[in-house]
Amino acid sequence: MEVKTYKKDSEYSYTLGAFPTIELLKTRPETVKEIIIHSSFKDRALIDETAVKHRIPVIINDKLIGKLSDKENCFVIAVFDKFSCDLSQDKPHIVLVNPGNMGNMGTIMRTAVAFGIKDMAIISPGVDIFNPKTVRASMGAEFRMNIKYYDSFECYKNDFIKHEIYCFMLNATSNLNVEDCSHGPLYSLVFGNEATGLPDEFLNYGKSIIIPQSEEVDSLNITIAAGVGMFIFTR
Amino acid sequence: MEVKTYKKDSEYSYTLGAFPTIELLKTRPETVKEIIIHSSFKDRALIDETAVKHRIPVIINDKLIGKLSDKENCFVIAVFDKFSCDLSQDKPHIVLVNPGNMGNMGTIMRTAVAFGIKDMAIISPGVDIFNPKTVRASMGAEFRMNIKYYDSFECYKNDFIKHEIYCFMLNATSNLNVEDCSHGPLYSLVFGNEATGLPDEFLNYGKSIIIPQSEEVDSLNITIAAGVGMFIFTR
Repeated sequence: MEVKTYKKDSEYSYTLGAFPTIELLKTRPETVKEIIIHSSFKDRALIDETAVKHRIPVIINDKLIGKLSDKENCFVIAVFDKFSCDLSQDKPHIVLVNPGNMGNMGTIMRTAVAFGIKDMAIISPGVDIFNPKTVRASMGAEFRMNIKYYDSFECYKNDFIKHEIYCFMLNATSNLNVEDCSHGPLYSLVFGNEATGLPDEFLNYGKSIIIPQSEEVDSLNITIAAGVGMFIFTR
Repeated sequence: MEVKTYKKDSEYSYTLGAFPTIELLKTRPETVKEIIIHSSFKDRALIDETAVKHRIPVIINDKLIGKLSDKENCFVIAVFDKFSCDLSQDKPHIVLVNPGNMGNMGTIMRTAVAFGIKDMAIISPGVDIFNPKTVRASMGAEFRMNIKYYDSFECYKNDFIKHEIYCFMLNATSNLNVEDCSHGPLYSLVFGNEATGLPDEFLNYGKSIIIPQSEEVDSLNITIAAGVGMFIFTR
């Protein structure tokens, strides 16, 4: 197959680097179309074994790796079909409203999986989860998640009426309380865009929460806020 | 004065952008040598007022801004003298051992100030706190902190014998416990390099702690681990 540089409307994407490639092969091998290896890459055992098992072609092509990767330390790339998933009805969710930064989104995915939250809703418009930069920032954690885009928060909410909604925002009515963070087993933790936060209308959904923080900074970085929120809720 | 692009051994550094510049003027105006403004920058009131009060020259120089900044949306730069500070004996500290990434360090500074920790020790070698990239990543939060480099962790520890030491590491003996995180008022939260973590010898200092996390990811991002740790300890 001829592999082209990534575009948002491509039917396939790719992993950049050995770590996310191995994560993809462990979790969603059926999506992998081809593995491209640099001639200097030696640690092939695990990749070759999985490739044989799932009948995935492995090719050596230094020039193609150079074309697809913007960093010099990339030696393995897997080309995979984009996939879609529905979110679990019986698990907690994280909801990102209009996320604008692929690096942040990848970091939030990695943190979510670390804390056991594996369902993510994205309210459009939002950055592309399949862009190789997002995949790399997630260190492949996104392959372990169910992720779905929704046109509006209302659409999302109507699909999950049993989930308690917690909106993280600076003008919230409640503090995130470590000792007494009571909630049922089904909840949605909602975070806004990194520059603008959640619009005021989210004060009307469920409960609004602020992570107590000094007025000496404008706000926490979105990845830190999401990390602290998910850590406390999953205890 | 002739302002050159930043080098680690320069006696001065600079802020890139209005937000960190205003933070610098609020917190350490005595260090500012000069403010450079782009001719298209209009929102000058606060900057001009502070400049008059502290007798800081303000110049318009579009070419110089282009030379010093690598991003196109930079319209204000303050040139400031590097400063040194000792850490407080009577406040909690964060300790970064061999930090390798300026963006991460800036994010950790911003989070530390948000949670009220304003003293940071850096165990050398570690990235440069005065590099304009670190300053920008901290959104100027670093101007509100006392930060000091130490040649070794032993040197740091000898200066602060009353501080309880908590080392965050993956092979720790205790979990970070939300409900029962008991500690005195003086503590040092110690975090390792983003790629390698803390060396095993840190198991011998104070108490070692791990933030409970799934084995499905290799580890939390250092900024998230530091954010969660500081949030729990400062409650």
